[in-house]
Amino acid sequence: MIKMTALILKTNDFESILITKAQDSWVWDTDGKKYLDCVSGTWTCNLGHKHSKVLQDMKKQMDDIIHRCMRFHTPTTLKAAEQVLNFLPNKYDKITFLNSGSEAMEFAISFARNVRDKTKILSLKDSYLGAFGVAKESSYTSTKASKLKIPYPECDSANCNCLDDFDTLIDHIMENYSSELACFVLEPIMVSGGIHKACNKFISKLCRQLQNVGVLVIANEVTTGFGRSGLRFGHQHFDINPDIVVMGKALGNGYPVSAIATRSALESKLSHSNYYYAQSHQLDPLGTAVANSVVGVFKDEQIIEKSQDKIKQFNTFFKSLSYPFIKEVRSYGMIFGIQIQPVEGKTCKELILEIKDALLEEGVLIGISLGKELLRLLPSLTITDDDLEFFKKKFVKVLDKVE
Amino acid sequence: MIKMTALILKTNDFESILITKAQDSWVWDTDGKKYLDCVSGTWTCNLGHKHSKVLQDMKKQMDDIIHRCMRFHTPTTLKAAEQVLNFLPNKYDKITFLNSGSEAMEFAISFARNVRDKTKILSLKDSYLGAFGVAKESSYTSTKASKLKIPYPECDSANCNCLDDFDTLIDHIMENYSSELACFVLEPIMVSGGIHKACNKFISKLCRQLQNVGVLVIANEVTTGFGRSGLRFGHQHFDINPDIVVMGKALGNGYPVSAIATRSALESKLSHSNYYYAQSHQLDPLGTAVANSVVGVFKDEQIIEKSQDKIKQFNTFFKSLSYPFIKEVRSYGMIFGIQIQPVEGKTCKELILEIKDALLEEGVLIGISLGKELLRLLPSLTITDDDLEFFKKKFVKVLDKVE
Repeated sequence: MIKMTALILKTNDFESILITKAQDSWVWDTDGKKYLDCVSGTWTCNLGHKHSKVLQDMKKQMDDIIHRCMRFHTPTTLKAAEQVLNFLPNKYDKITFLNSGSEAMEFAISFARNVRDKTKILSLKDSYLGAFGVAKESSYTSTKASKLKIPYPECDSANCNCLDDFDTLIDHIMENYSSELACFVLEPIMVSGGIHKACNKFISKLCRQLQNVGVLVIANEVTTGFGRSGLRFGHQHFDINPDIVVMGKALGNGYPVSAIATRSALESKLSHSNYYYAQSHQLDPLGTAVANSVVGVFKDEQIIEKSQDKIKQFNTFFKSLSYPFIKEVRSYGMIFGIQIQPVEGKTCKELILEIKDALLEEGVLIGISLGKELLRLLPSLTITDDDLEFFKKKFVKVLDKVE
Repeated sequence: MIKMTALILKTNDFESILITKAQDSWVWDTDGKKYLDCVSGTWTCNLGHKHSKVLQDMKKQMDDIIHRCMRFHTPTTLKAAEQVLNFLPNKYDKITFLNSGSEAMEFAISFARNVRDKTKILSLKDSYLGAFGVAKESSYTSTKASKLKIPYPECDSANCNCLDDFDTLIDHIMENYSSELACFVLEPIMVSGGIHKACNKFISKLCRQLQNVGVLVIANEVTTGFGRSGLRFGHQHFDINPDIVVMGKALGNGYPVSAIATRSALESKLSHSNYYYAQSHQLDPLGTAVANSVVGVFKDEQIIEKSQDKIKQFNTFFKSLSYPFIKEVRSYGMIFGIQIQPVEGKTCKELILEIKDALLEEGVLIGISLGKELLRLLPSLTITDDDLEFFKKKFVKVLDKVE
């Protein structure tokens, strides 16, 4: 079967292990060996793999209707719309559902461009917006539109002096670019881009000034939404009120569904009263049933509230580590980044791959970024105490062996 | 509940009926009234809604694993890869799976641009490529890149003289554009664009000449794939051998999964050996289990072979119709377009909306295009004789009443 992996286009680096089963924070390979999944699939299963209530609701929906002609609404979709809108920290009264976070971001940018009748997109230099299109061009991974990917002060203090240095940047943007901008897209925690968070004072002032002149603020909550950053949504770390909130990943807990929430006051500004968008699966009953179920579980089981203790335990553990190759640990909620530095005889890349492989051997699956020289962990919010103990034991065992 | 529809962004025109159940070629509204779905959802359910084998395989997969970290393959994905590649009429040895047809088209174009190190895209003027990005710009719905959306002769004859008039266009393209082209994207039957099919001689010669100088030919099979056009794939209506085949819609029969098939010889030409693409759900076990199941059903149940008789029955019926407001009927496989023309006192728009609404009242759901002045039907390939009789009776009843 392993030979058949040659049939798959090499879109990224693949491991040689074949995964065949998943439950909660665990996945199993074809030999029956199990691994603690510390990346929640592809950062999506905030509720753990195959949450029983979500699985049950999904099967129930499948017995009724999976998909329908896009000209029709289904009761499931309307329930999901209300459920998701009510879950957002600010008031939004319009929503639509698509498949992927990237598609949702592309939709949001296109919406903003239409409302504003401007094309340019502002973003922070380390942010990731999407896998294709304008979102990709506005991401740190692309060299395009580089003038509009701005630096930012990084701090977590309420009494910082960040604006002393960055006020001039805000002035510069307002003077030179604001009249051409459709939107500013904020990834509240820049996870792909290295796990960074901009200063609240800077972001709040920038958003306020941009919104004063009509530039839309879009919160990219694809990765940071649904408790991942410790709060319901990542933009709650800032004193801002985004015009559009883009959701993906955790909204489907493994199922491909994404959403864009905004306000009727903005929709009414669209240059076409009918903002035509056609995609086979927009507003599909199965996808929206999953979204409805997932958000219901977040509320009913107080997932985010209960995850706070685990977040603390992880932080206490990571802060206790002292190894020459660990430069720094950065964390926001259930997002952990361990910055690696070279040691005598070993590059960052060698260290990262060695640790990743040794952990896999020990039954622990972590994320890595060779470019950002990071070990990256985004465990499920529902990780158990036993899972956490297993993780700590294995992590220390592996790090102790690195020479 | 109807009030809650105000929460949904108006991305397209919505009907006021709420759909709540689907089975085979039928859907039910919240009052229990049933409708014959003559558009297969959003042109996706070629096997009918909730095909029992697909539903069963889906639930079985859900009990094992839905989603996993994108660094890992699953046995299901590898089986689907082999299954889909074997189902294609020409030989391809590389594939990947994404969520939507639009995303797959965007991926294919990006792949072609990378292989060729050129950016321009050629397409036929009535073709539709996707809902966003470059694919959208290359669609008939956009005014961008209009020089590269070319006219074409439309014929179904093997002994046509189309090239007499269109040879110069091929020469013009080869001389002026071929060196800048990344790819030519062919939608074999242009369904959104009005149900048109270009002449085989023209397309075959164009593709041959373009491929001779290295331009990639991409078959957009999102709508036309999996028996929709009467053959397995729409590009089999032409004597061509595409470099890339893009699949969506029917591949998931209602589930959001799409695919791109190509060849290792092309992948090896990518300027980066690792063509990085990151999307939460690429190669997901659930989506690929659905694709594997769907293609299995197409083979095992000889869906396409068996649909030929129904296609004939539809054609015989449509050809028997004689109404002053019907200008022409165009059909390819299970794709039917009834071109409407104005009659005294009624515009095309009025006629189309009247017929669509009256059919809905009678329990028949059809598609329409006001822009193209078409009634459009894409029934399931599994439509039964009884369903067909119901359709014919209701259709005649409604058309007879149009004054």
